Amino acid sequence: MKLVIAIVQDKDANKLRSVFVAHDIVATRFSTTGSFLRSGNTTYLVAVDDDKVDLTLQLIKETCSARQQFMTPPVSLNGDTAEHTFPIEVQVGGATVMVLPIESFHQF
Amino acid sequence: MKLVIAIVQDKDANKLRSVFVAHDIVATRFSTTGSFLRSGNTTYLVAVDDDKVDLTLQLIKETCSARQQFMTPPVSLNGDTAEHTFPIEVQVGGATVMVLPIESFHQF
Amino acid sequence: MKLVIAIVQDKDANKLRSVFVAHDIVATRFSTTGSFLRSGNTTYLVAVDDDKVDLTLQLIKETCSARQQFMTPPVSLNGDTAEHTFPIEVQVGGATVMVLPIESFHQF
Ligand code: NI
Ligand code: NI
Ligand code: NI
Repeated sequence: MKLVIAIVQDKDANKLRSVFVAHDIVATRFSTTGSFLRSGNTTYLVAVDDDKVDLTLQLIKETCSARQQFMTPPVSLNGDTAEHTFPIEVQVGGATVMVLPIESFHQF
Repeated sequence: MKLVIAIVQDKDANKLRSVFVAHDIVATRFSTTGSFLRSGNTTYLVAVDDDKVDLTLQLIKETCSARQQFMTPPVSLNGDTAEHTFPIEVQVGGATVMVLPIESFHQF
Repeated sequence: MKLVIAIVQDKDANKLRSVFVAHDIVATRFSTTGSFLRSGNTTYLVAVDDDKVDLTLQLIKETCSARQQFMTPPVSLNGDTAEHTFPIEVQVGGATVMVLPIESFHQF
């Protein structure tokens, strides 16, 4: 078995959980904080059989990849009234994933 | 050394901590959430010498194994008055445990 | 690559984050609880290239090593008035660090 550790944005965490459930992948979820000033993130620990590692990686990639998105800032940066704010393009999502060897796995 | 990662129910987490302390096993505790709609769980990280892995697994098994328990629901499901509620059998406990290799261990 | 898991005191956690940022080391931060009655601690997960493991360990050692420090207790233990309290020497800091092998690493 392998331990897949996936660090994803909070934004994508719920959808990833649903995707895991739909594919019978059991994950444990941690709230975490990135060390750069990014929004919060979520870490999943997933213990999977060797032959499910590729599927797990594929699901994370499909659900959490970094992508561009338009967002309207709540207030304009130079103090203008709200009618002058306009959407800016920001990068959202992204996932960091590590696969580690498991020597033994037990359920009690 | 090995890293033992144990995911247990919150219900059993305090007792497990006491059992670890009584056997000189130092564990670090995380609050976590299961991905299915179960009650909260707790994850312990335990770094142990190779010859203490079996003891650690045994202690987790003794303390946290899944078992049946009778529980009285706080309100009956069909809206009856409280006097009509009665105990139901539920499964509690259970532990998922992984043992991983540690390449080096340091205390500063 | 290697996964460095560092469990440090909350007291040292922010400084360690700054040190990691200054050295381009990306860490994910968890709030954790020690199993002995110590103050809270923080766990960092750091995925680093093999040739950065020694630097990472060195930075943790420099920033978080256990050391003696004088502290004035807020109230004296025998109920005397505050003017009779005096500084006591306590140990602060300390880090427990594990290095684990990573089989594969992905960024999406
Ligand atoms: Ni599918
Ligand atoms: Ni015993
Ligand atoms: Ni430096």
